[in-house]
Amino acid sequence: MIMGDRKTKAAIRWGVVGGGKGSQIGYVHRSAALRDGYFTLLAGAFDIDPDRGAAFGEDLGLDPDRCYADYKAMFAAEAQREDGIRAVTIATPNNTHYAITKAALEHGLHVVCEKPLTFTTAEAQELERLARDQNRVVGVAYGYSGHQMVAQARQMVTSGVLGAIRLVNMQFAHGFHSAPVEETSPGVKWRVDPAFAGPSYVLGDLATHPFYIAEVMAPELKIKRLLCARQSFVKARAPLEDNAQVMIEYEGGAFGSLWVSAVNAGAMHSQKVRIVGEKASIEWWDEHPNQLRYEVQGEPPRVLERGMPYLEAPALAEDRIGAGHPEGLFEAWANLYARFALAMEAHDDRDPGRVGEMWYPDVRAGVEGVRFVENCVRSADAGAVWVEYS
Amino acid sequence: MIMGDRKTKAAIRWGVVGGGKGSQIGYVHRSAALRDGYFTLLAGAFDIDPDRGAAFGEDLGLDPDRCYADYKAMFAAEAQREDGIRAVTIATPNNTHYAITKAALEHGLHVVCEKPLTFTTAEAQELERLARDQNRVVGVAYGYSGHQMVAQARQMVTSGVLGAIRLVNMQFAHGFHSAPVEETSPGVKWRVDPAFAGPSYVLGDLATHPFYIAEVMAPELKIKRLLCARQSFVKARAPLEDNAQVMIEYEGGAFGSLWVSAVNAGAMHSQKVRIVGEKASIEWWDEHPNQLRYEVQGEPPRVLERGMPYLEAPALAEDRIGAGHPEGLFEAWANLYARFALAMEAHDDRDPGRVGEMWYPDVRAGVEGVRFVENCVRSADAGAVWVEYS
Amino acid sequence: MIMGDRKTKAAIRWGVVGGGKGSQIGYVHRSAALRDGYFTLLAGAFDIDPDRGAAFGEDLGLDPDRCYADYKAMFAAEAQREDGIRAVTIATPNNTHYAITKAALEHGLHVVCEKPLTFTTAEAQELERLARDQNRVVGVAYGYSGHQMVAQARQMVTSGVLGAIRLVNMQFAHGFHSAPVEETSPGVKWRVDPAFAGPSYVLGDLATHPFYIAEVMAPELKIKRLLCARQSFVKARAPLEDNAQVMIEYEGGAFGSLWVSAVNAGAMHSQKVRIVGEKASIEWWDEHPNQLRYEVQGEPPRVLERGMPYLEAPALAEDRIGAGHPEGLFEAWANLYARFALAMEAHDDRDPGRVGEMWYPDVRAGVEGVRFVENCVRSADAGAVWVEYS
Amino acid sequence: MIMGDRKTKAAIRWGVVGGGKGSQIGYVHRSAALRDGYFTLLAGAFDIDPDRGAAFGEDLGLDPDRCYADYKAMFAAEAQREDGIRAVTIATPNNTHYAITKAALEHGLHVVCEKPLTFTTAEAQELERLARDQNRVVGVAYGYSGHQMVAQARQMVTSGVLGAIRLVNMQFAHGFHSAPVEETSPGVKWRVDPAFAGPSYVLGDLATHPFYIAEVMAPELKIKRLLCARQSFVKARAPLEDNAQVMIEYEGGAFGSLWVSAVNAGAMHSQKVRIVGEKASIEWWDEHPNQLRYEVQGEPPRVLERGMPYLEAPALAEDRIGAGHPEGLFEAWANLYARFALAMEAHDDRDPGRVGEMWYPDVRAGVEGVRFVENCVRSADAGAVWVEYS
Repeated sequence: MIMGDRKTKAAIRWGVVGGGKGSQIGYVHRSAALRDGYFTLLAGAFDIDPDRGAAFGEDLGLDPDRCYADYKAMFAAEAQREDGIRAVTIATPNNTHYAITKAALEHGLHVVCEKPLTFTTAEAQELERLARDQNRVVGVAYGYSGHQMVAQARQMVTSGVLGAIRLVNMQFAHGFHSAPVEETSPGVKWRVDPAFAGPSYVLGDLATHPFYIAEVMAPELKIKRLLCARQSFVKARAPLEDNAQVMIEYEGGAFGSLWVSAVNAGAMHSQKVRIVGEKASIEWWDEHPNQLRYEVQGEPPRVLERGMPYLEAPALAEDRIGAGHPEGLFEAWANLYARFALAMEAHDDRDPGRVGEMWYPDVRAGVEGVRFVENCVRSADAGAVWVEYS
Repeated sequence: MIMGDRKTKAAIRWGVVGGGKGSQIGYVHRSAALRDGYFTLLAGAFDIDPDRGAAFGEDLGLDPDRCYADYKAMFAAEAQREDGIRAVTIATPNNTHYAITKAALEHGLHVVCEKPLTFTTAEAQELERLARDQNRVVGVAYGYSGHQMVAQARQMVTSGVLGAIRLVNMQFAHGFHSAPVEETSPGVKWRVDPAFAGPSYVLGDLATHPFYIAEVMAPELKIKRLLCARQSFVKARAPLEDNAQVMIEYEGGAFGSLWVSAVNAGAMHSQKVRIVGEKASIEWWDEHPNQLRYEVQGEPPRVLERGMPYLEAPALAEDRIGAGHPEGLFEAWANLYARFALAMEAHDDRDPGRVGEMWYPDVRAGVEGVRFVENCVRSADAGAVWVEYS
Repeated sequence: MIMGDRKTKAAIRWGVVGGGKGSQIGYVHRSAALRDGYFTLLAGAFDIDPDRGAAFGEDLGLDPDRCYADYKAMFAAEAQREDGIRAVTIATPNNTHYAITKAALEHGLHVVCEKPLTFTTAEAQELERLARDQNRVVGVAYGYSGHQMVAQARQMVTSGVLGAIRLVNMQFAHGFHSAPVEETSPGVKWRVDPAFAGPSYVLGDLATHPFYIAEVMAPELKIKRLLCARQSFVKARAPLEDNAQVMIEYEGGAFGSLWVSAVNAGAMHSQKVRIVGEKASIEWWDEHPNQLRYEVQGEPPRVLERGMPYLEAPALAEDRIGAGHPEGLFEAWANLYARFALAMEAHDDRDPGRVGEMWYPDVRAGVEGVRFVENCVRSADAGAVWVEYS
Repeated sequence: MIMGDRKTKAAIRWGVVGGGKGSQIGYVHRSAALRDGYFTLLAGAFDIDPDRGAAFGEDLGLDPDRCYADYKAMFAAEAQREDGIRAVTIATPNNTHYAITKAALEHGLHVVCEKPLTFTTAEAQELERLARDQNRVVGVAYGYSGHQMVAQARQMVTSGVLGAIRLVNMQFAHGFHSAPVEETSPGVKWRVDPAFAGPSYVLGDLATHPFYIAEVMAPELKIKRLLCARQSFVKARAPLEDNAQVMIEYEGGAFGSLWVSAVNAGAMHSQKVRIVGEKASIEWWDEHPNQLRYEVQGEPPRVLERGMPYLEAPALAEDRIGAGHPEGLFEAWANLYARFALAMEAHDDRDPGRVGEMWYPDVRAGVEGVRFVENCVRSADAGAVWVEYS
């Protein structure tokens, strides 16, 4: 149970790149990082417009000297301060993640980065190596994975209650972009522009979420080959897709499917992950994250509820409020930021192993997300053919 | 509203092949055919064991003379009678459908046949030609399609309320055969034996149902190519699959996906069809067939209820009881049998056009189901590759 | 499993009073009685207009001689025939049930009567005595109680899996008469006219259904006192109520509540019964009758499915189709008519005890329904005060 | 849309009484107050054990001098400081609310108090007068009411889309105390002890929540008389009830019902409020607070989703994240604390009217909650009879 007690020795001095005025995701990051005192916001390069960024930082109570014109200035100046930041969150457009993360690591900072980490696996792997060499944490913002029922699912799958895994069904299929809303919405426009969004739209924007959640739930599965078909139902979005369907063959014979869409008219999120084993299945839906469906073949289906004593310990550890009371996405993010802080402190102490069984969306997860999208795009662009996973 | 009034001039003299003692599906066929007096059961070759078949027929009140040892005897003898049967239902194992249907048509009988109609498209097309030449009806037992909310969906899609169709998601994925239950259950054993079941298990047994329902709902869609991956999670079932995933490209750019499974542990039917258009989606689930979900992008989702005045006329015409009262699968079947009778009478009167807009799972639907399975198997057996639909 | 096999020695010769042209409920009765051959329809007085009634009967294939002008003529004439009817169903307006049932019993007929059996408890008890003296069955059309999951609930409650019963929550609250639809709908008009409907509207029309189902589920409970408040939101309906709320104290300390309404705008049926015990609760909803919710305190809620092997034997005995396939209200009614036939045969054989544990909505249930409504009305008319149950 | 921007001029200097180590509710209050910078925590009397309280405060980063032994010391000392607290939250056992709130008001502090505000209406009214005289805000912790869909419901009801209100159904019925858990759980023990809990258990603890939500949704309704039956299914809890049922007659003819329980075995919260009007109904369930069911008679039911543009402005104003992403109870509380701050600032500026249409659970709501419980207890203790509301 979390009641605001920080499990680390000290709050981590923290800065933010991007996420300034009008940024919803910036608010989500700050809420999560500051929730239980794991981080202290001390510096920021919040905006591409330096004045607006500075004003924003001052509104947040920052020292004006520590509101920077850009990330380069921030990293350089903070590195000179004895009380300089130790960690930075990167909440900028996709095309900048690689360069900023790289710079942050080179300045010895821990990083929390929005996904996708980079546009190519090679770049992501470079960051992974750099993080290892620098002994730094890179956390990736797979926020949904912080829900406790995801942890519950992981415990159930890895402890074998489902039996051998046969099927993994993933989807994240909303309808908000059924019409060409990008024509009037700047917030959507960049997502369908390869220059800013990278080589994909819904594969990168949506698919990586259930993909990571499935990986958390069933960590043993390794992809052998996959096939991806992608479509641009709003034609002007081509070559970026607004809908995609993926088939996955895992080592050992399990089979996966994934559907992502921004044109699933009338749907909200429809982010669901279902893991089917020999004996039982589990299913989780992000719109009602406090529940986990558990179906044993031959028995009545059960709905597990967050906060109940029958859950596994890791699923209970991060509760902030009793069973029945709904927690939401902000709590899931806060759970991740707390784990980021624990991992950062362990790295600072040169004792990364002490976080033990704790998992979080780390740089490896960031690499895997990019790799997955890259393989999907490679398959789709070759005509929706099978490609060996690489 | 149906209150037992028959819309045909006379009950059709009717016989049954198969469906004898212990056959659940035989009971379903009889319940549907006799429900509102459209058919009169007068003859049968109910069992591979003639004595048991005769006893069964007598229990049903048949004239012992008209309880036959096999379908050949029945067709021959009934053809000699002035009051001989005019229609026959075939509820035998899959491997016999082709021969019996062919014989029935050659004897001038209308036919209702269990699916799959045949094992090959060529055979099915032969039956289609024969039916046309003989001016006979061949109805296929896609029982779920008789639910009124399927008719409602068809009206909505074809009238354009969804806009252009983009996506068709089909599934029928139960978990009842997660374990190798065929080892002890004869009723499952034949389904996984190619000699009796044909070239597929779940594709033929399950996939054809949502496939036909999707066709009813969106009749304009034509398949261009498809790709099918199939698996035998219970290894002894190979080459027959107990799980399959299909991708479909339709002419004009719509995209379809289908998941069928007998190893979806813990699930009952999970037969669902979702049609996504530019503006809205509909979704139907056979386990709760009195509801149809209707989601207009940008509006709250609605749940349409069978029997309500806001529905389209064809969806209301076959109600047997007021809104709120649940109808079940027996009513869906009875709806189909009533349509079969209407079509048979129209054919007998050499005026098949008078059934107008009425649709039912006819021989063409039977051909299409076989064709779909055949294409899926062809794709799967070539390594889950794209095949042009043929 | 039911596959059309009749469990009685012979079909019962059967007649119907009312339920003629345009009567939905007449169709429901015929469908149920004829479903599996338990009854043979041989006579009828279907309509207050004799010619229309005769025409209707002939359409059903009856001998014109046995299409009668009224029930008196029918009972008299049939009593003279060697092959006369042995049972009659009464599907006429409420104000005639008492007289026709009485006449039927006096003619030695078994009866199935629409509810309410009578307008007063005294009358109902008179019929109960008469039925006992005549050794006849009087079945009452509490059709919903025939669903198998009601039987499942009864087994669970009576076997003690819930622990001692604490609470019984009943409701049947639709919204179809939110507006004064009786002004234009004759089918509704008589329901709000005391001359035809009796002393109540929704209490008699709706409340008796969940009341009986609760009694089936928890047969041990005895009402000690109750309090009823009723309202006429459409004022012209007064003194008949279109909404009512009841509190019930049972012997032994259990507490009940009941809500019935015809003005619950936007709701379909909302007929639900929840039984809460010391350890667990069950809840059943008639719109999705194939499911039963089972909630053990401290465990995840389960949803039990009709047809599954984990159910109790009595809940499985009447399945007509496999688990996952929805059954509807017609099957529930057919289950009751089969039990009526079994009870009638046992009475005919002067061996009523041989039906053993079998329950059905019998004359006692009819009496209890009338008594409940009478007590509710007595409470309501005294200002919604507690009345000792009598 | 909320993105962390404070709408008040300055953060309010804030202290807390109670809510110390191990207090879940203390964490909820702090999370809400501090969420977007509306309050700054500067002082506390967190614990009945002064040392433990001081340690707790220091862990929270407070100045040790401002960690007080008790509320009296805190109020006295802070009143002497130029930078003393301006508002205090009271999160202590129920029996202390009255005295501490009174003292706080007398010291010129704004108050946020846990419910129930007091044990008697007279006391609550005294606080109401005192608050008015002192020009202070007293907010009451009806946290669920801060969910945006409650605001949506209010807009819909008050704008007349439901038509005249006929029925109000309220419930909050969990099963967590089905067994006598108080024997081993100190956290439950005080709730069933009149000395600490006051004259009721579930009426005060649970009923006041849906009661206030219904009042928010349908503010025009005034209670005329009510009747309450309460039970102690765990006998040792008597005279405090663990289950209660209430009937309510409102001025003008609307009718209400309320069910509260701690022995609804297997249920989580089941807190639901349904408002039925002439034309339509709405229904809200706190376990899935991002949805609001809207049912227009004669139309398909709709499920409204938080964050969607079709909602009313007040329901959108407090969103922190886009539609589809679940918000939880912490956001609802934060919404209330933001409103508390706005109201406090308006009072400080002697311009309380400037908060305009904004509503929040104020001292009047606190009085009404106490009054409702008092009337219920009066009715129940007189034998569950009708009492004129006073």
